[in-house]
Amino acid sequence: MNSFGRSFRITSFGESHGPAIGVVIDGCPPGVRLSEADIQPALERRRPGKDPLSSPRKEPDRVEILSGVFEGKTTGMPIALLIRNLDARSSDYDELKDLFRPGHADYTYQAKYGIRDHRGGGRSSGRETAARVAAGAVAAIILKEAEITVSGTIEEIHGVTDPGYFAAEIEKAKAEGDSVGGIIRVTATGCPPGLGDPVFSKLDALIAGAMMGIGGVKGVSIGDGFDAARMKGSEHNDPMDRHGFRSNHAGGILGGISSGADIVVRLAVKPTASISLPQKTISRTGEEAEIRVKGRHDPCIVPRVVPVAEAMLSLVLVDALFEQEKYRRFVKE
Amino acid sequence: MNSFGRSFRITSFGESHGPAIGVVIDGCPPGVRLSEADIQPALERRRPGKDPLSSPRKEPDRVEILSGVFEGKTTGMPIALLIRNLDARSSDYDELKDLFRPGHADYTYQAKYGIRDHRGGGRSSGRETAARVAAGAVAAIILKEAEITVSGTIEEIHGVTDPGYFAAEIEKAKAEGDSVGGIIRVTATGCPPGLGDPVFSKLDALIAGAMMGIGGVKGVSIGDGFDAARMKGSEHNDPMDRHGFRSNHAGGILGGISSGADIVVRLAVKPTASISLPQKTISRTGEEAEIRVKGRHDPCIVPRVVPVAEAMLSLVLVDALFEQEKYRRFVKE
Amino acid sequence: MNSFGRSFRITSFGESHGPAIGVVIDGCPPGVRLSEADIQPALERRRPGKDPLSSPRKEPDRVEILSGVFEGKTTGMPIALLIRNLDARSSDYDELKDLFRPGHADYTYQAKYGIRDHRGGGRSSGRETAARVAAGAVAAIILKEAEITVSGTIEEIHGVTDPGYFAAEIEKAKAEGDSVGGIIRVTATGCPPGLGDPVFSKLDALIAGAMMGIGGVKGVSIGDGFDAARMKGSEHNDPMDRHGFRSNHAGGILGGISSGADIVVRLAVKPTASISLPQKTISRTGEEAEIRVKGRHDPCIVPRVVPVAEAMLSLVLVDALFEQEKYRRFVKE
Amino acid sequence: MNSFGRSFRITSFGESHGPAIGVVIDGCPPGVRLSEADIQPALERRRPGKDPLSSPRKEPDRVEILSGVFEGKTTGMPIALLIRNLDARSSDYDELKDLFRPGHADYTYQAKYGIRDHRGGGRSSGRETAARVAAGAVAAIILKEAEITVSGTIEEIHGVTDPGYFAAEIEKAKAEGDSVGGIIRVTATGCPPGLGDPVFSKLDALIAGAMMGIGGVKGVSIGDGFDAARMKGSEHNDPMDRHGFRSNHAGGILGGISSGADIVVRLAVKPTASISLPQKTISRTGEEAEIRVKGRHDPCIVPRVVPVAEAMLSLVLVDALFEQEKYRRFVKE
Repeated sequence: MNSFGRSFRITSFGESHGPAIGVVIDGCPPGVRLSEADIQPALERRRPGKDPLSSPRKEPDRVEILSGVFEGKTTGMPIALLIRNLDARSSDYDELKDLFRPGHADYTYQAKYGIRDHRGGGRSSGRETAARVAAGAVAAIILKEAEITVSGTIEEIHGVTDPGYFAAEIEKAKAEGDSVGGIIRVTATGCPPGLGDPVFSKLDALIAGAMMGIGGVKGVSIGDGFDAARMKGSEHNDPMDRHGFRSNHAGGILGGISSGADIVVRLAVKPTASISLPQKTISRTGEEAEIRVKGRHDPCIVPRVVPVAEAMLSLVLVDALFEQEKYRRFVKE
Repeated sequence: MNSFGRSFRITSFGESHGPAIGVVIDGCPPGVRLSEADIQPALERRRPGKDPLSSPRKEPDRVEILSGVFEGKTTGMPIALLIRNLDARSSDYDELKDLFRPGHADYTYQAKYGIRDHRGGGRSSGRETAARVAAGAVAAIILKEAEITVSGTIEEIHGVTDPGYFAAEIEKAKAEGDSVGGIIRVTATGCPPGLGDPVFSKLDALIAGAMMGIGGVKGVSIGDGFDAARMKGSEHNDPMDRHGFRSNHAGGILGGISSGADIVVRLAVKPTASISLPQKTISRTGEEAEIRVKGRHDPCIVPRVVPVAEAMLSLVLVDALFEQEKYRRFVKE
Repeated sequence: MNSFGRSFRITSFGESHGPAIGVVIDGCPPGVRLSEADIQPALERRRPGKDPLSSPRKEPDRVEILSGVFEGKTTGMPIALLIRNLDARSSDYDELKDLFRPGHADYTYQAKYGIRDHRGGGRSSGRETAARVAAGAVAAIILKEAEITVSGTIEEIHGVTDPGYFAAEIEKAKAEGDSVGGIIRVTATGCPPGLGDPVFSKLDALIAGAMMGIGGVKGVSIGDGFDAARMKGSEHNDPMDRHGFRSNHAGGILGGISSGADIVVRLAVKPTASISLPQKTISRTGEEAEIRVKGRHDPCIVPRVVPVAEAMLSLVLVDALFEQEKYRRFVKE
Repeated sequence: MNSFGRSFRITSFGESHGPAIGVVIDGCPPGVRLSEADIQPALERRRPGKDPLSSPRKEPDRVEILSGVFEGKTTGMPIALLIRNLDARSSDYDELKDLFRPGHADYTYQAKYGIRDHRGGGRSSGRETAARVAAGAVAAIILKEAEITVSGTIEEIHGVTDPGYFAAEIEKAKAEGDSVGGIIRVTATGCPPGLGDPVFSKLDALIAGAMMGIGGVKGVSIGDGFDAARMKGSEHNDPMDRHGFRSNHAGGILGGISSGADIVVRLAVKPTASISLPQKTISRTGEEAEIRVKGRHDPCIVPRVVPVAEAMLSLVLVDALFEQEKYRRFVKE
């Protein structure tokens, strides 16, 4: 389904080249100051067409609040946010109507639904993430009141870890008609202990699901992640003293519940599937073909995934905060 | 909450040293042959006390079917499975009543609930996974009818990749009073294309959530995982010809939907938190202390996580299969 | 939350005097022919301002499909439907900003949220039901393919059971500045046996929840309803012969599962709360006051509830049909 | 599915003549004093075999707490409650293996599942409600802390409204080999304003779904219920003065949200389907037959439905209380 969250629940809709994309936020508390101006900056960060390295599609991405806000404040009712699609050049995709682009959802959507909106990837397009970013901006306002900050950064592009060389690495791929991936770290500071539930709804389980639900993400880790598999217990366990944890190998989560330390998440983003180099593929009728993907694509989507990953972590945390509220009256210190 | 799944939904309960653990399976179709004998072997694989390297706790782990089966077949009603706890030596844990074990959920449970069953880790104990394994055994029967096979294997123990040296690595850690982690690969073969939903309920998102919900797992990846972040699109994209995909960097999932190729998942398991080496910690009242964790612990839980990871993947796949059924009548080839 | 349904799930949003109302339908199968023209007629039936007895508010209620439809067919993606509010005369409601209208949600919304969009009742307005009717129109298309028909009729207005006198009864109330209620019967014919689940998700439980969720509904019954409480088992039990059930006291549902007989539901609708006669009430600050509700109101909402009740029953049935699909492969005749 | 509730969620399992019935409660806050002795009295009230008018089946209905309680207090973990079936005389039902009892779920279960546990009605038996009553007893403890009281009473048996004649009415039906139904009123006093959500999760919608989910219930109403349909707005609207509502036609709920007045619910219970008079029916293979239902049955289940209805209302209210908690921090008075 196209909903995410339990107590702070979003439902997103829309295709890359349809009339609009949008999101309905259900569970936002009443009394929160909110206007379009609070959401627009987050959309700007994700927006295509800003620099030579991102897709040249020019979308103003103007968000409209359709409901749930009265006299500048939320009312507790569902908040519907709408973003019209304007610069959709669907004819660029005519050729792709019958050919499956390697690394894309074309083949699997066709197999599942027997029909697909091929224009710009339809619902599987990265454009859908604008809805998440808009919802994440609302979540961030609530987190701010709770003094929780979420921020993401690029750690690697195509194996390069020096930020000074990231642009060069992407330009090189672009010049080759190829693409590159990378690694993102997202951190939440200020989280109180106690967020998350045991067993299936562990905070890290919710985060992993949220992050792996972003297109192009192939791996998620918490704290030391895969490195933890190569450590000893005596190295990995975070000792405590009266000031709190003395290290943070765990990445802020123990037994699925936040510990109060920074929550540290990493995402592995694959290289953009759309490349202009020739690739072998098949058509809908099963004939072999060669494809060169046209259209307007980012040679590296990592920079644009950063705000999406921040949005998803913000959504998970607000949701966990509200779930946690239910217990607070009953916990005796 | 303590439920997992949508159309094939399990609800687990029980603590390490309480009267019993168990699970209710809701959504199992009618007419499936099922008896205790179909579930017991999976529990045997996960059971402690079998060899010198695992915890010496001796639990027979006898499962009893309480409902949902009539004359040897499922009826479509909820299937409750019960496993009594027998060999619970709670006195081993008396000392831990007031001390937080580093790397454990002790501190976070106390912070969240203000109360905790400290005996053997209570609900955060690995013992809870017996319920998942039991439910997974039922899922596996359904998968078998659909000709889907799930199997897990250890890829690394403490960085060592040669299976011949795994036992030595664990023994060494044990001798040192320390512990080690490792990496598990779980593979599903025979999955039809079309499992999973776009956007938030992507098959890989569900898998990542399921795997990260296993205690001790700090990272999850699909296909090439974190390596994909260091590849180019031309390397990572899987070309197709009329025989299907010619490689499987994607790990069997494109755009969140199964492609028909093998689903390949990796999990990073941290070293067991319980070690007998001295560690710095604090008490419930905040005083600094040194702790040496007693009780019966595995120096490496990786081997026992394998059947749990298989169970979780089986549960995700059956759930996705049933979700998929809803559409099949409508898809025109 | 503002969502309804499990496998065919709708999420509605919008206030009476905000920019728009709308609904997102999640779970519609792919390949269903759908355009605005398929939805508009249902909205016409519910629309205000058509005759002298209904509210004189003039809303064109034009629906726009924002997503989920490609080349005239659904794609399996969420279908967002938008209806702009145009004729909102919010100034009519200025007086109501601080006074609680008896029989309305004004007091309870204020108590729950501490803030409310008082204009036209905000989210508690009957206007919200246009979103349900739009979604119900999509459900009806799917039901039609399954040869299921849902239709509602008025059985009583203010105790009068002769349809020829309904209008007179409403006019009389209007002339008095008062309002009247009535009873609606909604029937589904053509339902296959097997819809609904045992215990909590009984088909009648889902229907009762759906109907009582319509504003102004104070009672719901199935089959003989409250009359059944005055019958003997020998009168109420429906005997069977080889042609099927020989009577339908049960209203088409046995043990929570459809029997194949017509599903018969009744709703008791209270008299419209907004009346122009003077009423005693209090203000937000607790002062006593007298109120005469202005604005544009129906003296009897029963006629306009009929399409809403049809929509809700259609939504429940499609949802139950899809839930049922999951089992069909496994049931051996 | 066999779960009920959102924040206080129960999952029930078990058949009339299987090994056991039970329930898992998920979402109970930590720190609540709880032992078997707190649950047993509620089970006693529902228990069969207590007087000559109820079923002579003798079940001790001893509840066992399997999890979620430590040293006499809840821990926030799932609470599993188990009740073994002891006095199951399945041979009484041998004849019913192939005959559908009129008014029962036999036919519909067979149609849906293709298999059914015919013994004593299997899962569709009233015995399942013992699980709900046990869970309701836990809910009642929480309600008590919040000073909310739920109590049910019989208003009518077979149309008779004088409680002094109820027993005679039931005895008469029994003597005739027949059965009778009745009407139950359940009231909640002490509810704070603000429980329930707008639109689909209205408090009355949740209550209606909960009550109609009890076997044998054919109608549910709130406040004046079906009588409201025959009233004028000026009669039905409850005026307010500074002491609060001056009448309670609404039954304590306005716009789907509790108003602080007593919540008043009525249920119409049909006459017991099992009667010993001969009835026309068909067999599984479609042949016509006459049936006289043997086994141990209540000629009137109304008295035993009272504690079940109380349990369901308690469950709805606790759930709504916890859902409400999420907002409280944000509501400015």
